[in-house]
Formats: sequence, C-alpha cells, structure tokens
Amino acid sequence: MNPVTASRRHYEDLAPGETIALGETRVTRDMIVTFAREFDPFPFHLDEEAARQSLLGGLASSGWQTAALTLRLLGDSFLTTIASMGGLGFSNLKWKKPVMVDDVISGTATIAALRRSRSHPERGIVTIDLDIRNQRGEPVMSMSLANLIALRDPAAPFPAEAAE
Amino acid sequence: MNPVTASRRHYEDLAPGETIALGETRVTRDMIVTFAREFDPFPFHLDEEAARQSLLGGLASSGWQTAALTLRLLGDSFLTTIASMGGLGFSNLKWKKPVMVDDVISGTATIAALRRSRSHPERGIVTIDLDIRNQRGEPVMSMSLANLIALRDPAAPFPAEAAE
Repeated sequence: MNPVTASRRHYEDLAPGETIALGETRVTRDMIVTFAREFDPFPFHLDEEAARQSLLGGLASSGWQTAALTLRLLGDSFLTTIASMGGLGFSNLKWKKPVMVDDVISGTATIAALRRSRSHPERGIVTIDLDIRNQRGEPVMSMSLANLIALRDPAAPFPAEAAE
Repeated sequence: MNPVTASRRHYEDLAPGETIALGETRVTRDMIVTFAREFDPFPFHLDEEAARQSLLGGLASSGWQTAALTLRLLGDSFLTTIASMGGLGFSNLKWKKPVMVDDVISGTATIAALRRSRSHPERGIVTIDLDIRNQRGEPVMSMSLANLIALRDPAAPFPAEAAE
C-alpha cells in the first residue's frame, strides 16, 4: 500500500450519493488578468471596456480558469482525502454564467458512480459531479470528472454479477 | 458588426471537416511545478521522486495544465482568427498519456460541427475536436470544445429544412 495514501479513504470506503461541500475562492481582477495573459488572452478577459461590449457584460474569468480553480477546491476538500491515483478526464463541462471580478465561487462534489477496473483490479474509477456556484447561489459551471482511486484490498474478489 | 472581429472569419466562412494545425509548446519543469502549486498540488506534479512512484512514472504536467496550454494553442491558431464570442463548454476530455518534463505538445483542431442558434440567430455554435500529441506523435489528450461564433449576416434566413 502506498504510504502516502494508506490512511486515506479508498475505493471501498466510498459510495455513490455522497456529497462533499467544497471550500470557496474569491476571483480577483489580478487573478483573471494573470491567467488570461498566459492561457486565454482574449480582450474580454483582459480589458474592462472590451468585456463590457462582449456577451460577458464585464471583466470575467476565463472558463478554463474557473475549471482550474474548481480542481483546486476539489483537491483541497476531497482528492487529497482519498487514495487518488490521478485523473482520467471529464465530460459535459458547461459554463453557465460568467464569473465576474470578485465573485466568490464554491459548490459541491457528488459521487455519481463507482466502478472497479476489470483490467487493473487494484484500481477503481470514481465519477464526481461538480456543481459550482457564485456567491448568489447561481450556477456558473458544471462537469463530471473521472478519477482513479486505489482499492484498499486489491485482491478482493469481484462480487457476483449478472453475466455481461 | 463588432469592429474587432469584422475582418475575421464568421460562421458563414467555416465548414465541417476543416483541420487547423496548432502551434507547439514545450512543457518545462518550471511550468509544471508553477501550475501545480496553484491549481493541482499533488506530489506527482511537484516532486520527481513521488512522481516516479506514481502511475505517471515521472514528473508530469497536471492534465488541466495540458488543457489550458491547448486552449492557448487553439487561441493563437484559430480562435483569434474567427469572430469568436466565447466558449460554451466541452465534452469527452481524455488524458491519454502523461505530458512529461520537456515534452513538446502540438496537434490539430478539426471543425466537427456547425449549428446556428435558433434562439439567437446572430450566433452559431462551432464544435471543435482537438487531438493533442507529444513530440513522438503519441496522443496525450483529446476533447471536443463548443464555441460561439458570430454570423456575418445575422438577418440571413435559415435554409429550408425538413420539419423537425
């Protein structure tokens, strides 16, 4: 067993339906402009006047910054408490509303599904639905993340299942 | 018409099947550690020894950094050449292989679909399939991105279509 993650929750300790409250983070003008300069240098992420004339209606974070900040919240609240082996990917990411200067984002992570790998029986895949909201409770982003998690007992038999 | 984007390609100028070659970017150790500290502070993105013992096999970028760097490549090669109105979201993001220190990522963007909005007929939605590879041509990430794009002629009638 990995000594770093031995004391953390493993695949066997999780169940679908559990909801984890995420922490919160304030998205400042400086954060928005710094991220946009490096990764998403569109005028509506860099300049107040250009932003006002865009669909965003004012200076707003890159949606990819919102995603990266969400990852950090998820890491702090959940991924560092389980025997995570890394991310596989995600699906259905939707930006629902702009994140404006000084908005505070937070939200929940819900365990949507758990599946043990057949090819690597020491690993499971946990699917996490993320619902990210601003300080007014308005949804700003949602997505589903698939993450690898170690089994505590890699030799455990698979439960009997209907033939596939 | 937006003066910033007037001279760029609009919805009417695009067609499914077009493939755009992206530029390339080298992912240095410093980039990996800086991004991971802010957004994804797992030992396998920060520490060579921890990374060697992980599934990654060595120091590798956060998958979210690979995604953000891809966005930058897509911006430079394509999104800044069209009348983009911003991103809507993406789906089916898959990390296929770790991006290791000093790997050079590049790839292609292919216009997979184009659809005009019924509720906002001045806008279209372009779906872009991204295929990101390392310097050995091995796939490291794929995803499909949905982006808003302005019509050059917002008053153009919708073509006759089969009743839905």
